[in-house]
Amino acid sequence: MENKQKIVIAEVGRHLGESVTFGCWLTRRRSSGKIQFLQLRDGTGYIQGVLVKEEVPEQVWEEASRLTQESSLYITGVVREDPRSPSGFELSVTGVEVIQVTQDYPITPKEHGVDFLMDNRHLWLRAPRQRAILKIRAQIISAVQSFFDERGFTLVDPPILTPSSAEGTTELFHIKYFDEDAYLTQSGQLYMEAAAMALGKVYSFGPTFRAEKSKTRRHLIEFWMIEPEMAFVDHEENLRVQEQFVSHVVGEVLKNCRPELETLGRDIAALERVKPPFPRITYDQAIDMLKELGMELPWGEDFGAPHETALAEKFDRPMFITHYPTGIKAFYMKPDPNRPEVVLCADMIAPEGYGEIIGGSQRIDDPELMEQRFKEHDLSSEAYQWYMDLRRYGTVPHSGFGLGLERTVAWICGLDHVRETIPFPRMLYRLYP
Amino acid sequence: MENKQKIVIAEVGRHLGESVTFGCWLTRRRSSGKIQFLQLRDGTGYIQGVLVKEEVPEQVWEEASRLTQESSLYITGVVREDPRSPSGFELSVTGVEVIQVTQDYPITPKEHGVDFLMDNRHLWLRAPRQRAILKIRAQIISAVQSFFDERGFTLVDPPILTPSSAEGTTELFHIKYFDEDAYLTQSGQLYMEAAAMALGKVYSFGPTFRAEKSKTRRHLIEFWMIEPEMAFVDHEENLRVQEQFVSHVVGEVLKNCRPELETLGRDIAALERVKPPFPRITYDQAIDMLKELGMELPWGEDFGAPHETALAEKFDRPMFITHYPTGIKAFYMKPDPNRPEVVLCADMIAPEGYGEIIGGSQRIDDPELMEQRFKEHDLSSEAYQWYMDLRRYGTVPHSGFGLGLERTVAWICGLDHVRETIPFPRMLYRLYP
Ligand SMILES: [Mg+2]
Ligand SMILES: [Mg+2]
Repeated sequence: MENKQKIVIAEVGRHLGESVTFGCWLTRRRSSGKIQFLQLRDGTGYIQGVLVKEEVPEQVWEEASRLTQESSLYITGVVREDPRSPSGFELSVTGVEVIQVTQDYPITPKEHGVDFLMDNRHLWLRAPRQRAILKIRAQIISAVQSFFDERGFTLVDPPILTPSSAEGTTELFHIKYFDEDAYLTQSGQLYMEAAAMALGKVYSFGPTFRAEKSKTRRHLIEFWMIEPEMAFVDHEENLRVQEQFVSHVVGEVLKNCRPELETLGRDIAALERVKPPFPRITYDQAIDMLKELGMELPWGEDFGAPHETALAEKFDRPMFITHYPTGIKAFYMKPDPNRPEVVLCADMIAPEGYGEIIGGSQRIDDPELMEQRFKEHDLSSEAYQWYMDLRRYGTVPHSGFGLGLERTVAWICGLDHVRETIPFPRMLYRLYP
Repeated sequence: MENKQKIVIAEVGRHLGESVTFGCWLTRRRSSGKIQFLQLRDGTGYIQGVLVKEEVPEQVWEEASRLTQESSLYITGVVREDPRSPSGFELSVTGVEVIQVTQDYPITPKEHGVDFLMDNRHLWLRAPRQRAILKIRAQIISAVQSFFDERGFTLVDPPILTPSSAEGTTELFHIKYFDEDAYLTQSGQLYMEAAAMALGKVYSFGPTFRAEKSKTRRHLIEFWMIEPEMAFVDHEENLRVQEQFVSHVVGEVLKNCRPELETLGRDIAALERVKPPFPRITYDQAIDMLKELGMELPWGEDFGAPHETALAEKFDRPMFITHYPTGIKAFYMKPDPNRPEVVLCADMIAPEGYGEIIGGSQRIDDPELMEQRFKEHDLSSEAYQWYMDLRRYGTVPHSGFGLGLERTVAWICGLDHVRETIPFPRMLYRLYP
């Protein structure tokens, strides 16, 4: 293959009328006896190769005839335009060099159960639908980075191994760290607050862990979070950043992943409505709306997924629920100065039943109030001295939020279950492969 | 502060002659009695504020006089050009609103011991040197992403929690994963191989862990790796990608982080020489060179840091050592077909004594040889069936490599120790903050 032009399928459009060679896998072969159609993939794209028996050497025809599903090969041919094909091109095959004839590929075109597919996740990734999700996931991550990098944020990696957790240890994975006890991080936020005092505006992108014995279509044990934190930014500006951020991410997917959205059969119009400003309701208004919907809830109780879904159905794009009761939110959230029984926080609820994708708030900046919260929440003051220091030494108003990547991928892709949103999902009974 | 133009210090150049307001911290104050100089930082940059007693209201002068190191404030003033200042600008202060007067900031301009600074890492990050390192780290990560994204690679996140390890469990952190045993990943490579068969060219960026009881200036317990994997790419092309990749990363830092490199006193000329092609020597040649240097080593032994440093000193840019003995390299590396006692691998050694920053190889694609390696290395075939599947079902030639982020940051920044290369380092006796 040395003297042929070696390309990838994504580039065939630049080689119209030329002879090209590329490595690929066969996804499907059909033959009429006089003509063979080879469906080919190389990870960058898909193309159909066509062999006409009378026009190719006997040996090339025979080689092609041996190809089974997921066989690997180098193929040579001339790139032709083909308006009927999704890519717009097809390949008039002139040469086939088989690398491996695959026997009994486990994932056949027939239906398979989810457990079987999960056991074969390393192969299932090759399916067009799974590839499309992974491409969109990567585009979402890239859009996260471009949004923050263009706005002067600095990427900061908070630690994964932490000495303790601010929010209880029951849902934490424990690790023996030489002679000490460590836990896998649930959130990098506290560390990001320290970083914001050094760098102004920062964001993280990394894995987080929750040892939760729940098995729902929204829960993963290992999931990725994006956690921005901004010095000198208040609750109002925090919400503006969030709606611009999510709109940017959706916009980039719409711009760059149209074929993948089509592979998934995603409702494009629903995504095109994701533009700022996003509707905002307070917790109090949400309680009233739920009552009207026959889902009465006493003031002070948290919403579950059904409440969030019912509220989100009233709106055509992501929406904010703000000003939750202080008692049901994290210890570090700043009370509303006009009404300290609620905090300057917001959850962003995705439309179409996908639930909360962002939680955020302005943080407490007052050292005395923070000391009080430490006592109320029984946070061992030694382990959190460093966090208290952020209020002792040059405290400033600051805000931040956390976006759950997998729930965002599920929403943007329109998936029923988060298990398909990450290459190798970790769930309650799923640690393999 | 509502009616003032609220900006960040990085943007002052766009507001020459205008009155601006921003939130910031004081790093240092000097006063002659008639004039005060305020050194200010906000994370985005540095600027000097100047107050002339006769020109400002008494109250503004008094407020400024209260400011101590790391006090937080909003400041208002007119942006002036100042060719003597590193930023090119200074601020004629007209207003000061103190947020907090900081008492006894622990990190004073005097020298502090490393343990003390590490205990106060959450505050130490505010120092110009630490901020410069974090900015360069973020630029390196951004350059990694732009390099791969522009070349058709897809970002894939391999799992952090894994059921077992291909390379022994002695240096792994163990986790009780409900009723199963899990380990923190040491490398995502095997998973990236599966992803490459689905997406062609992929790369990862994520944390990895090594429970190693060593305490050297090159070791962290928790460190970040970039692991590209490429289908239909051989050893030669793998090396070309690596030298282009590292040159791109260094070039982006040189282009965008000049002030930070100057803060660190980095030798810029040494970085400017980082251009492809990189010198290549084989393991055999390296053995000969070491002999000439009086560091004789029997064929088949691995190099340590002193050997790598001695070899790297012969070259003015990163260099490759290729074709190591099969016995001292990972089980998945492809033997040289002409000489099976060595593998198609390379380590990239950074110049200036920074040691190995990349390890990579072409991978075994032959299913029989892989089965043989499984037996030789006593890899429980059940746990690795999925990895074996990659050779059973459409095996193809493929190659990849892993770059250690923190060693790369140490080299590009010119640091003595990796502990400063990551926001919150995890080391043998260091889990706090
Ligand atoms: Mg909620
Ligand atoms: Mg080595």
